[in-house]
Formats: sequence, C-alpha cells, structure tokens
Amino acid sequence: MIAANNPKLTSWIAVPADSDFPIQNLPFGIIKKGDNTPKAASIIGDQVINLDALHQLGYFSSITLPEGIFNHHTLNGFIALGKSTTNAVRERLSEIFQKDNAELRDNAEGKSSVLTPVGEVDLLMPVHVGDYTDFYSSEQHATNVGTMFRDPDNALLPNWKHIPVGYHGRASSIVVSGTDLRRPKGQTMEPEASKPSFGPTKRLDFELEMAFVTGKVNELGNSITPDEADEYIFGFTLFNDWSARDIQKWEYVPLGPFLAKNFGSSISPWIVTMEALEPFKVAGPVQEPEVLPYLKYTGKSHFDINLEVFIQPEGSTETCVARSNFRHMYWNVRQQLAHHTVNGCNINVGDMYASGTISGPTPDAYGSMLELAWKGTKPLMMPDGTERKFIHDGDEVTMRGYGEKDGVRIGFGEVRTKILPAK
Amino acid sequence: MIAANNPKLTSWIAVPADSDFPIQNLPFGIIKKGDNTPKAASIIGDQVINLDALHQLGYFSSITLPEGIFNHHTLNGFIALGKSTTNAVRERLSEIFQKDNAELRDNAEGKSSVLTPVGEVDLLMPVHVGDYTDFYSSEQHATNVGTMFRDPDNALLPNWKHIPVGYHGRASSIVVSGTDLRRPKGQTMEPEASKPSFGPTKRLDFELEMAFVTGKVNELGNSITPDEADEYIFGFTLFNDWSARDIQKWEYVPLGPFLAKNFGSSISPWIVTMEALEPFKVAGPVQEPEVLPYLKYTGKSHFDINLEVFIQPEGSTETCVARSNFRHMYWNVRQQLAHHTVNGCNINVGDMYASGTISGPTPDAYGSMLELAWKGTKPLMMPDGTERKFIHDGDEVTMRGYGEKDGVRIGFGEVRTKILPAK
Repeated sequence: MIAANNPKLTSWIAVPADSDFPIQNLPFGIIKKGDNTPKAASIIGDQVINLDALHQLGYFSSITLPEGIFNHHTLNGFIALGKSTTNAVRERLSEIFQKDNAELRDNAEGKSSVLTPVGEVDLLMPVHVGDYTDFYSSEQHATNVGTMFRDPDNALLPNWKHIPVGYHGRASSIVVSGTDLRRPKGQTMEPEASKPSFGPTKRLDFELEMAFVTGKVNELGNSITPDEADEYIFGFTLFNDWSARDIQKWEYVPLGPFLAKNFGSSISPWIVTMEALEPFKVAGPVQEPEVLPYLKYTGKSHFDINLEVFIQPEGSTETCVARSNFRHMYWNVRQQLAHHTVNGCNINVGDMYASGTISGPTPDAYGSMLELAWKGTKPLMMPDGTERKFIHDGDEVTMRGYGEKDGVRIGFGEVRTKILPAK
Repeated sequence: MIAANNPKLTSWIAVPADSDFPIQNLPFGIIKKGDNTPKAASIIGDQVINLDALHQLGYFSSITLPEGIFNHHTLNGFIALGKSTTNAVRERLSEIFQKDNAELRDNAEGKSSVLTPVGEVDLLMPVHVGDYTDFYSSEQHATNVGTMFRDPDNALLPNWKHIPVGYHGRASSIVVSGTDLRRPKGQTMEPEASKPSFGPTKRLDFELEMAFVTGKVNELGNSITPDEADEYIFGFTLFNDWSARDIQKWEYVPLGPFLAKNFGSSISPWIVTMEALEPFKVAGPVQEPEVLPYLKYTGKSHFDINLEVFIQPEGSTETCVARSNFRHMYWNVRQQLAHHTVNGCNINVGDMYASGTISGPTPDAYGSMLELAWKGTKPLMMPDGTERKFIHDGDEVTMRGYGEKDGVRIGFGEVRTKILPAK
C-alpha cells in the first residue's frame, strides 16, 4: 500500500467528517489569493496548502525540485517532473501533515504562510490543456441514446463493443468550477421545418463525466499499452461536458459534434492523483465480444467513485437529479489511452480525456437531462415547483464525486456552473 | 494597395523567376541554424532573413517591439502583438530589402548575420497550435464522397449547404514539412468480415487543404462576424490532412474521425500573411439556398491560389497527381470563423483551421487519392510503372501552392512528407 493512503492516518488539520479531502487524498490544484500570483497547492479539510511557500521554507529539501516549480499558473511543469517526483511530494505532504509531526504544526509563522482557508482563495484551472478528447464509454448511455434516436432493438452501433469510441473536443473552452457559461446560440432544424433557424439552444444539457489528465509525453509514432497506461495517467477531475442537443442533432452527421459542445466544458479544480484512487479500483464488466489484443488489460482498472448531479434553479435550493458511479464504464481509462495511441498519436502533459456520459443501470442514475427526462417526455420536478426537461437560464448545475473505503472518503470537491442567458 | 504588395518592387536579393518568395510575399516562419536557438524569420528568394538579428542591429527601431520577440521557438508571441505591429514589420522588411535601399545592402557584416541560404537552416513549426479545427468546405469533395459512399442522387447531406461543417482535430500531431510519418496501425472492419481486424492501414491517403492561423484572441462567450474575421486571421499555410480511410470508415459513426486522422497532419513552414494574399482575393460561388444572416459576408472572400500534389515513389521521380485551386471552396474562411464562434467558442493566437479537402470540378483536380483513383477503381500510374490506389510506404507526398498576378508569384513553398512503414 502507498504510505500516504494509509486509512489510519489523521492530520493535525481538522477534517470535517464529510470532507472530500482527508490527509489520504492530497490532490493538486492552482490557487490564487488576492493579488498574489497563482501557486500550486494541495488541500486538507478546508485548508489549502501553498506548495510554493512550503518549498521556500525548505520542507521539500529531501526531493529534487526546480526552484519556483510551484510558482506557476498551471501544474504542467510540476507534473512533467514525473511520477517519482510528484508521488514523493504527495508522500512528503502526508508526512508533514500527520497528527504527530511537529515540524510545521508547531511553526506558527510557517503555518500562516502555508495554510489558507479554502474560502479565501480562488481555485483556478489546474492545468493548461493542450489537447482534449472525449470518449463515449458508458454502455448504458450509448444504449439510451441509441434507443431514443435509432433503434431500441439495435441501440448500440456495430463498432461500439470493439472500439472505445472517442472524438477530439475543444481545449480552449474548458473552464474551472465557478465559471459561468452563457447559453449558446446556434443553427438548428426544427422538426417539420423546411429550413434551419438560428437562436439560443432550447435543449441545453449537462453530461456527467470524469476526466483523466496525462502526465508523461508519448512521442509521435509510439503507442502505449493498457498495462503501461498508469505511468501516463497523472490524475482525475470531474467533468461536465455541456451539450446543446438541438444544435448537435443538426450538425453532427457526418463529422461529429462541434458547436454543440465547444462553447464550454467545466471541470473540478483539484486533480486527484491516480495513486490516491488506488483503494477504489474495482473489476470492470466482462467484455463480450472479446476485444482485440491491443485492448486487453490485466487487473482492476475501473474505479468505484460515487457521482451525483444537482440542479439549483435561480433563487431556489439544489436538488439531486442523478446518482451514478464511475464504475459504470464499459471501457476503462487504460483501454482508452491504449486505443488513442495505437496509431502513434502523441500525447502531452496536461492533455485531458473525458469518459463520456456515465449513466448507471437505473433511470435515476442517468448522466444527462436527455436521458433523465427521456427526451423531454418525463420532466423532472424542481424544489420550486418548476419542471425541467433541459437546463434553464439561471440554473446552477453541480457535480460531486467521491470514493469511500475503510472509513476514508476521497473526493473531488465539485464542479459548479451557472448558466447565463444568451447574449 | 498595401505598399509591400506593390508589384513593381524588386529586391537587392536575387529572386529566381519561379520563386514563391519575391519581396512582395515576406511570410513568417521559424528557422534553426546549426546549434543556435530557433529564431523568427522571413524569406526572399533563397535567403532566409533572421528577424532577431535584424532587430538586434536596430533595423526595427521605428516599431515598438519587445526585446527578444524574435528569439522564440514559435511565432505566437510576435503574432499576438497584433496586426498593426506585424504588418509594420512586413512593411519595414519590404523597405529594407528594396533594390535601392542601401542600409543593409551595403552593410556586409550586417548582411552576414541576417541572411542565410535556406538550404542551410531547418524550418521548424511556425506556431504552437493550441486548438486545431478541420472544415469540410469544398462542394466537389463533399459531393464526391457522398456519391461514393452514400447516394449519387443525394450526395450532399441536408445540412451541408447551411453549415460550414467542421470538427475538432488533434493539435499535438501537426508536424512541419520534412517530418516523416509512420503508416498508422488501427482497427478496421473488412467487407464481409464478421469481426474487426488490426494492422497497418491499407488505405493511407492525403487530403489537399489550406489552413489559416488566428492571430487575435476572442474571449469565451463572444462571436466574430464574417466581416470582422480578417482582423483575426493572421495568415495561411498548406495543410496535408493525412487520413486512413479504412480506419475512418469503421470508427467515424457517430462521433466523427479520430484515429483515422490524429496520427499526423503536415503543414508548410511559412505563414503567408492575409495581407500578402490581398491581390488574390476573388468572389466565391453564389450560395443557394441563402445562408442564415450570421453567415452572410461582403466583398471578395475566396482566394485564387493554385494547388498541386505530387507523389514520389521511393527511388523514383515525382509526378503531379492533382491540380486544384483554393478558390474551389463553397464556404470561405470568414464564414468558417463566424460559424466557429457564433456559439461563443473562444479562439487563441496560433489556433489552426484547415479547409477540408479542396477538390476542383474535374477528375484531375480532386484533392485526395480516394477521389483521384475513385475508391481504387481508377489507379494512378507512377513514373516507375507502379500503380497507386492509395499511398505506399516510401512514397513522398508534396503539396505546393501559389497565386500569380501582375507578374508577381506569391507562394507557400511546400509541404513534403515521407511515409515510413508501420512499426
């Protein structure tokens, strides 16, 4: 077991019972405090840990780290140092913040420069995303969509169980939790209409996804096997793949979604490391038909992460509309990365790969409004008495996720987005 | 008329008659000479112009330029200064290199630090590409593909004349001319087969395209109109959108091309500015049915640029297999950029947007092997007596492009790629 994951560890920083950030998590992010420049950070309970301050105070002297490595706008440079270094930093953090370690605990001045309540900082985009890929790897989701729009008896397309289907998305419009998004305008073809029309989307939807971030370069022409993938996967965030269903329907044949997606995608601010998620690895479904050899993997490669979606209408309270789990994936992240690179496609540090909508087996576990309200035929009731078929202006959509084992809860915090009316 | 475009200008640098780079062109690129760090450069005839050396010698003292702006691995920082600056640099270059201007011409030491024969430098990727988009904007190409794979009587899909159809591609695998690419491996479904197979693509193809590069940021939530687009478009390169047809066929429904494209795309090294192409602007086709208001444009928005594709089998000579023209576009670049941002999608400096395969109206003007050899039914004959339905290992594919007017030829140089066997 990774020492930092020991479920018996406790910290001298108070950790509320339902916190996503016990000492066993120690994710990485970027914070900004007032007018200071952005710094790399971690978090325990409600206290963010300024890694640059820790480094300057000499607390990482046992690890070879470039000067100023935590004094950047993104984590890319730090992540690029490799897992031997990033894991050593996580292990060292685990040591510094253990209950019985006095080195920082009893250093009042040091603590004041290192720790800040999370409410007093802005959480920024943790990485610069070079390329972003979205997969389509939940069988329930693909089946739901196929049932609604194609043929219930042949809901899955012929390639679906052979290929972890994916496509390239827009990297520039990935924003961090707390960033408002504007309802996009676009071209749609109404049923029965003879020509397309233009205006704000009438079918704005979320998609509940997880994303992984790569931390190691793969040069053009090389491939990564499923069993090598862990070396390349740095960590995970929650991912809301905002979608405009009416725009998508009109544009996506034959080259895929474009303006229906690229107006914005939202992520949670902390990257939870692959290593912190080790305790939550579970076996995936039996894949039948058998996959091609390049997609075969060994060991537990799925993750038992509870996922929830909440909608908060303007001026009202939030209500949970979906409870799913990251384990409800047909294709796992190792297979996704192996498929992505089997043709020699190169990958970089900071690249992001979303799972596709994660829908569970029951109707309350579906990961999009399209599925939850079943194409508008089963509207959801909000606490303020209004109905939702899709997302309204002023709605805040929040996704949360966490794993729980041996009394330890490792979570992702949240990704929260408010939808502003179209311009 | 832009002063630098004056067809009467000549330079004190000798310019061969068929050169793409007379004093009226002055494109921008990145060069590397021996062990020196990369520098921003331009070119006249066969001489590359080291802009960093010119700047250090004070030749740009009339223009406000940050120190070291030309001493970078990419042009992004320079381009981000804006068109008022980049155009001023181009105008100043035009002045310095005019035949009767002695300031550098008669400065032997200065000349030796500024000029180098193009054969003595490496031409690197001119920009860091943040996001890359590929359009599908040639009517002949879309019609050819629709005729081959769908219905000759309804070759164009219903959305095609309403939307400049596009999709996101892989930015990381865009490489510069001279970079070899390896034949990709992937999953395909052979006709009549009951299950997919895996191996090197049997249908490797080029796609003759042009790409534009944006030079100005558009913030998330904002749109660019067709008439504002020129402000945002810095310049153009040739673009070879390598494609594996058999992989594409099996993977692309429903989310578009992925591994069939992301193993590599190749560009020419010089970015020819929007301003240098001003003389080659021509009217486009009448668009019927009428487009939605957000896609309406005024003025000449297409470009009369001759495009050629050559294949050189290993150990043989090159032969021209296609002659097309950038004017054979249905949708122009202004419409592409307006469509791309109408939903508020943000764009950055260095982002790249390819046209889609540019096929002309006659069979010798088609922009891909798929069309030229019509799905393998009409193989092309090579000078060494071999046939080509698709691209073979060892083949070098080269694309060239230029406009010609008033005795002045403004060209792009070439994008040349050799295909190595699969690993």
